[in-house]
Amino acid sequence: MKHTAVLLLSTPMRLARKGAVTAIAQFLTAHNGSLLHSDDHLDSDRDLFLSRLEWDLDEFDIPISEFEHHFEPLAERFQINYHLALTDYRPKVAILVSSYCHCLADLLYRHSTGELACEIVVIISNHPTAKPLADFHHVPFHLLTRPKDKRESEREMLELLGQNVDLIVLARYMQILSPEFVAQYLLRMINIHHSFLPAFVGAKPYHQAFERGVKLIGVTSHYVTATLDDGPIIEQDVVRVSHRDTVEDMLFKGRDLEKLVLSRAVRWHLENRILVYKNKTVVFV
Amino acid sequence: MKHTAVLLLSTPMRLARKGAVTAIAQFLTAHNGSLLHSDDHLDSDRDLFLSRLEWDLDEFDIPISEFEHHFEPLAERFQINYHLALTDYRPKVAILVSSYCHCLADLLYRHSTGELACEIVVIISNHPTAKPLADFHHVPFHLLTRPKDKRESEREMLELLGQNVDLIVLARYMQILSPEFVAQYLLRMINIHHSFLPAFVGAKPYHQAFERGVKLIGVTSHYVTATLDDGPIIEQDVVRVSHRDTVEDMLFKGRDLEKLVLSRAVRWHLENRILVYKNKTVVFV
Amino acid sequence: MKHTAVLLLSTPMRLARKGAVTAIAQFLTAHNGSLLHSDDHLDSDRDLFLSRLEWDLDEFDIPISEFEHHFEPLAERFQINYHLALTDYRPKVAILVSSYCHCLADLLYRHSTGELACEIVVIISNHPTAKPLADFHHVPFHLLTRPKDKRESEREMLELLGQNVDLIVLARYMQILSPEFVAQYLLRMINIHHSFLPAFVGAKPYHQAFERGVKLIGVTSHYVTATLDDGPIIEQDVVRVSHRDTVEDMLFKGRDLEKLVLSRAVRWHLENRILVYKNKTVVFV
Amino acid sequence: MKHTAVLLLSTPMRLARKGAVTAIAQFLTAHNGSLLHSDDHLDSDRDLFLSRLEWDLDEFDIPISEFEHHFEPLAERFQINYHLALTDYRPKVAILVSSYCHCLADLLYRHSTGELACEIVVIISNHPTAKPLADFHHVPFHLLTRPKDKRESEREMLELLGQNVDLIVLARYMQILSPEFVAQYLLRMINIHHSFLPAFVGAKPYHQAFERGVKLIGVTSHYVTATLDDGPIIEQDVVRVSHRDTVEDMLFKGRDLEKLVLSRAVRWHLENRILVYKNKTVVFV
Repeated sequence: MKHTAVLLLSTPMRLARKGAVTAIAQFLTAHNGSLLHSDDHLDSDRDLFLSRLEWDLDEFDIPISEFEHHFEPLAERFQINYHLALTDYRPKVAILVSSYCHCLADLLYRHSTGELACEIVVIISNHPTAKPLADFHHVPFHLLTRPKDKRESEREMLELLGQNVDLIVLARYMQILSPEFVAQYLLRMINIHHSFLPAFVGAKPYHQAFERGVKLIGVTSHYVTATLDDGPIIEQDVVRVSHRDTVEDMLFKGRDLEKLVLSRAVRWHLENRILVYKNKTVVFV
Repeated sequence: MKHTAVLLLSTPMRLARKGAVTAIAQFLTAHNGSLLHSDDHLDSDRDLFLSRLEWDLDEFDIPISEFEHHFEPLAERFQINYHLALTDYRPKVAILVSSYCHCLADLLYRHSTGELACEIVVIISNHPTAKPLADFHHVPFHLLTRPKDKRESEREMLELLGQNVDLIVLARYMQILSPEFVAQYLLRMINIHHSFLPAFVGAKPYHQAFERGVKLIGVTSHYVTATLDDGPIIEQDVVRVSHRDTVEDMLFKGRDLEKLVLSRAVRWHLENRILVYKNKTVVFV
Repeated sequence: MKHTAVLLLSTPMRLARKGAVTAIAQFLTAHNGSLLHSDDHLDSDRDLFLSRLEWDLDEFDIPISEFEHHFEPLAERFQINYHLALTDYRPKVAILVSSYCHCLADLLYRHSTGELACEIVVIISNHPTAKPLADFHHVPFHLLTRPKDKRESEREMLELLGQNVDLIVLARYMQILSPEFVAQYLLRMINIHHSFLPAFVGAKPYHQAFERGVKLIGVTSHYVTATLDDGPIIEQDVVRVSHRDTVEDMLFKGRDLEKLVLSRAVRWHLENRILVYKNKTVVFV
Repeated sequence: MKHTAVLLLSTPMRLARKGAVTAIAQFLTAHNGSLLHSDDHLDSDRDLFLSRLEWDLDEFDIPISEFEHHFEPLAERFQINYHLALTDYRPKVAILVSSYCHCLADLLYRHSTGELACEIVVIISNHPTAKPLADFHHVPFHLLTRPKDKRESEREMLELLGQNVDLIVLARYMQILSPEFVAQYLLRMINIHHSFLPAFVGAKPYHQAFERGVKLIGVTSHYVTATLDDGPIIEQDVVRVSHRDTVEDMLFKGRDLEKLVLSRAVRWHLENRILVYKNKTVVFV
């Protein structure tokens, strides 16, 4: 298993150019941090330099618990916002699902093959459909006791999630969550919406697409925000349809896309590849 | 050159099943019309059978000018709506363009290689930019004399177009046409919109897409109707973008899509492959 | 459930034009066979007309067991080769798999949701890996007792398959089958090869692709013939890679393609959409 | 116009990690070189660190003509191979073409809109077809006087090219060039091959693809080496085909791909985005 650290950071562009990049490189070199990957992005409109750095911890001479202490002077001097993650930490993930289980089945299978480096701690649903799958994969399954009462459901979920869940995945969870719930998991809750946003916001997007006669249908994975289907987009993809495709055909084709796009978004999040700013994502892949 | 006829037709589904298909096949066989291609589509929601038939005219024993006379009894009996076209007729096409000429250049080049079986009779513009291209391809170029007065412009255009133009192509023509003008060329005017409709209707769609942070940008070719960017969609395509793409990069990538998608739509129209119903298209390719 | 019949047929092109198409339409109409879908293809180089017809059996006045008897005169007169299938028959499918189970898991899940209209009667493997999946889906699992002795393995498989299996799916089965075995399931055995054939025939295609530095990797689903990786191609797809992708990344990306492409090929076969001639397929979708 | 410098470099991976990256960053900062873009790639199998750096020259305090002198100590210490390019230098490009002119027309049009930052100094052909296009774009056109004598043709071309041509683009030039000619323009000559290499090497690839019955056709842009169609691949793309596509349809679809893929490869080369090693390319986009 890799024993590395990832630093996601942003700094004003002019400071990045006038020394921040060099100073960070010097910092890592000075402490025997052997750089494995670096990627960056300049947004001149927003005056922002964004970067992802990954380095080997084997010979790194700062205990990781003291990283902040050592890095702080640099961060202050160059106004660096940063997030540090360790790749051998396995984030705790909760999956919310309703009656359609294809995304859940896909995520569980990928997890079982090692593709998703996380721990799936609970599956919560307003339908019993997913239980056999959860059992097969030895993941605790929790059926909401009063699925039609949103307030109650959310209270129940919050208790189940406790303090330890790092990421919530909405794997075709068909209930709208309250702004209060969303606020607690900001940028830590990923949804799959079955349309190419911003087209076809809301309910039954494949039916909307069919009515409009589009020639491609798409899906969108995004962080959940208080406004419906309006959060920062992580990934999208499309597939061709024609007049030969019924709504049912679109549902089938769309499901394959949903699985792919949601699993990519989840993996990138788990691998600390995503930076969010101004309601947009930078994905370092 | 091919000497064939194309029949685009629709009939109520139940009549299609109870004899219309057979009767049409018999009609062609009886008159020595050797069938080259057939394609059809059933829309059970709308109770419609739609079909495209192409047959060889070499041994067809009805003079094409008398086709209607002979076909009428069948059409009446089975409530067939139809449109007959001859593949050796070269439709007369007018192209409207503003300052961006990439679609125009592409159409003219394709025409010169024989890919578009039509006659381009006039290029009309509110900018002088396209003139050298028009000259190189020996197509009459007309600069609108009062480009900022929409009513005047349209009057001028209508005179130029006269009675003979079969198809108008809006090759990035950036003026909105009046409902009156549109009405005269209903289902005979094709536009390219630089977004994946219905996302980003209206002006500066690439800028809108950039702001929203989408991961794919698209373009849409459609028949023009009175409602802006709402006509029947003929073709769409997308290309991947990332945070690395500026608005300018999107413009460049989008242009390549615009050329491809518009030229496909125009070719399918010229080859009589498109049937429109309920604001949607069936494209028989 | 649909109660329909599908006829896949081919006839010399000149006969198709001179009455065969009409005669078949008349035959169905005469017997109250209400046509649901028709699709056809003309190959002028090979002088062949190929067609797929689907009609409703509810009012069809010939018992399906006597179809051949009634259709034979037509078939003889127009030299029609044909294959009749009933959509309410669920073909019996055997899946062969080695240690990689992603395609198997995908097929089993799709089967469980009703996407694949068949009965999966046995899973045969030279590795025990797939057993838990088979058990979860209640499909008999058979581990080959002498997996390294090809002749013995094939004998064992033939016994297991018996006379009733309609289709064998090689879901990443990594053993080469003998020509004798292949001959018994000609056009009834579908393989997934993890390259864009004809590029990278044989072993370790992702490694070959990595070494060659291609910018897209692909997969191919095809009917198995005696020549390795040379059978009629049913479906292919590709995904973009770059220098950032290691061989392992390619393996991951490739697996997603393999699942999609194999499941499409299997579904089209089960729905009687594929006609093979001259080592190529016509897929009526 | 941008006044920037681009440095493409490679260094052994262990040296990159142990200070080379930091040293280069320090070097630029020390001389007021404001970093605009950086991108890098680690190939651990080959023990190589590859990087592309672009910085602003406005305040850079080393005259660019003396860059090598100042950078040399660093380069020696860290075994850095490097190539320096100035973005305001417009490379001189020669285009070789045969009778198909679609790629040439596309390149000339893109050049006219500013998409390709270069000077097209000559068009050389073994057919007169391209002359009107060359004239329209005011580019000198040279018709080879003895097109069938390869040795003579190449001698003539070498004279025409002289010492100043930076890049040769083979825009569907259908003659095979001698190893001697190729050697003089190693990694400075880009070809478009109309297949998805390594499938369908050599002549008439669309016909080969048609015969094999593939479901996607592709094209490949690559640097020319002494072995036919075997040079480092810069870009590839594919488009879907079906049994409905004749060889002619494939030719048409392929042409659109050829234009896109060749123009991307040429633009990336002109923008100094391509590093070649071990017969593969790293494209920093």
